[in-house]
Amino acid sequence: MAAGVAVAVVGVTGAVGQTTLKLLEERKFPVRSLRAFASARSVGTTVTFAGEAIRVEQVGPGAFTGVEVALFSAGSAQSREYAPQAVKAGALVIDKSSAFRMDPAVPLVVPEINADAARRHQGIVACPNCTSIVTVMPLKPLHDAGRLRRVVATSFQAVSGAGVDGVAELRAQSLAWARGEAMVAEKFPHQIAFNVIPHIDRFVEDGYTGEEMKLIHEVRKILDAPALPIAPTTVRVPVFTAHSIAVNAETEVAIGPERARELFAAFPGLRVWDEPAANRYPMPVVVEGRDECFVGRIRRDLSHPRALSFWVVGDQLRKGAALNGIQIAELLVR
Amino acid sequence: MAAGVAVAVVGVTGAVGQTTLKLLEERKFPVRSLRAFASARSVGTTVTFAGEAIRVEQVGPGAFTGVEVALFSAGSAQSREYAPQAVKAGALVIDKSSAFRMDPAVPLVVPEINADAARRHQGIVACPNCTSIVTVMPLKPLHDAGRLRRVVATSFQAVSGAGVDGVAELRAQSLAWARGEAMVAEKFPHQIAFNVIPHIDRFVEDGYTGEEMKLIHEVRKILDAPALPIAPTTVRVPVFTAHSIAVNAETEVAIGPERARELFAAFPGLRVWDEPAANRYPMPVVVEGRDECFVGRIRRDLSHPRALSFWVVGDQLRKGAALNGIQIAELLVR
Repeated sequence: MAAGVAVAVVGVTGAVGQTTLKLLEERKFPVRSLRAFASARSVGTTVTFAGEAIRVEQVGPGAFTGVEVALFSAGSAQSREYAPQAVKAGALVIDKSSAFRMDPAVPLVVPEINADAARRHQGIVACPNCTSIVTVMPLKPLHDAGRLRRVVATSFQAVSGAGVDGVAELRAQSLAWARGEAMVAEKFPHQIAFNVIPHIDRFVEDGYTGEEMKLIHEVRKILDAPALPIAPTTVRVPVFTAHSIAVNAETEVAIGPERARELFAAFPGLRVWDEPAANRYPMPVVVEGRDECFVGRIRRDLSHPRALSFWVVGDQLRKGAALNGIQIAELLVR
Repeated sequence: MAAGVAVAVVGVTGAVGQTTLKLLEERKFPVRSLRAFASARSVGTTVTFAGEAIRVEQVGPGAFTGVEVALFSAGSAQSREYAPQAVKAGALVIDKSSAFRMDPAVPLVVPEINADAARRHQGIVACPNCTSIVTVMPLKPLHDAGRLRRVVATSFQAVSGAGVDGVAELRAQSLAWARGEAMVAEKFPHQIAFNVIPHIDRFVEDGYTGEEMKLIHEVRKILDAPALPIAPTTVRVPVFTAHSIAVNAETEVAIGPERARELFAAFPGLRVWDEPAANRYPMPVVVEGRDECFVGRIRRDLSHPRALSFWVVGDQLRKGAALNGIQIAELLVR
């Protein structure tokens, strides 16, 4: 591919699609040509890439002809329908929806963790859910060093994880509050401004949400630890961008805070911000817009001899979605 | 006390002091006379109680003469200095600061849990920290039914837990954001609007915060379980009132979700809101202003055969502070 790659972005007007365009530029991904796909209501508008206005198209018959890499962030139904068409047309599909994540034939990839799995793809590589990616990043070096035995994870998830409508709703409710007006909840099941909602995705079984079950199944698949016990609680908070997760991790071999700090600092894509005396720890407002996941509040769990507590924050539009997808593309078109 | 009780409220202009006045009225506490104490800067102002304006005084020599019950919510230094004076003057002190909580001679009381301990007081009864109260309420019936073995707790704490200045800061920052102006952080170590801060109280030892250590030590003392292993993470969120806690509780005897629901529903001061199909679970905006603590998201922990995950929310100015203090007074002046 001397002259670069023919790229398609499906779901280009969404929060992840927009971040994908930004990152393709930022990272100087060798884009030879760019096709921009979105739903019918966006057709006719344009998106900007590398200073050029690109016409938004609707996916239709023959849409993927000539496309080499198709980055999908358009929702599961769209992925299920169009990803196989793109593969048939010869494209490598990198899918950010949940459509194929648990398909045994589809690798579920975080490049820093399981790049090898990506290379065994059969046309589609799945990108994990944003919360799974941010959570699994610090778990991997712990797992390698001490074998994970159990993980308890509680998330604080930003509204942009629910897309541009989520951002619009937090903005609208916060502005309504400032004007002394009533807040309207449409995107989220309840008011999100000045509130927290312990409910993301639909309720599925046994009182769990889809988001929580994704965290369990995806972390297991990424780490190739199919029986790893995980206790998740996922919560929406009034933050625009970047997910935070409070993690308690039990390992077979005890890992102290100092050793954990070394392991995290040495792991690609992870950075340690952990200086309590200077009030320094990761938070959404400082992590937003950054590519790495940041770990802090690293401490021995006083309740268990082989457990560690810590706090990890990642921009879920970047590492949690768009960036992870582009990293997969970089890995496979290298 | 046929003619009622002579009450003093110390720290009357604070968030908890104001809620104390409101609740003394709401609950028709038999107040014969009310003295209102606050710091020098509030002296000369008045507070309203039962439709009457009451002059705010500064605590000084002889201030507690004739006072029968003194409700302190003025900070540890003030409690340490003035509570012994009030006891000397013959008053029962109910102290909401951390000054005496871990003093072996001072009972640390949540009336639904350890009323007996309150009756053994020697002049001072301590009220636990707000997060400890909300967390320990559902833990008690589980402990009684199945003996707690380990607790992992992650909190989502409202700004009013830091007092009226905390509320003012979230308001000011949110309004500044609405006007497109810069936010100023003074009360909290970082911006709290549209952010979460994994840091409450000062950092103490081993990377823990004072708030986290309070949760460990206070829950143990209230439950009379001095070695109970607890793994806490306490986080400030942009919510005005009501603390939420994601709890994972391991018991010696397994307690299933159905049994837990029954135990919670039967426990005084607790209510169960747990109807996932109706999107019903406790949240700060619906719990604010209510006296009970509300439990939802009750589910079997898929990662441990004898653990349960749930979500508890309580108005930390009410049950987490003012209400709990008045309940102690009601218990002891009955």
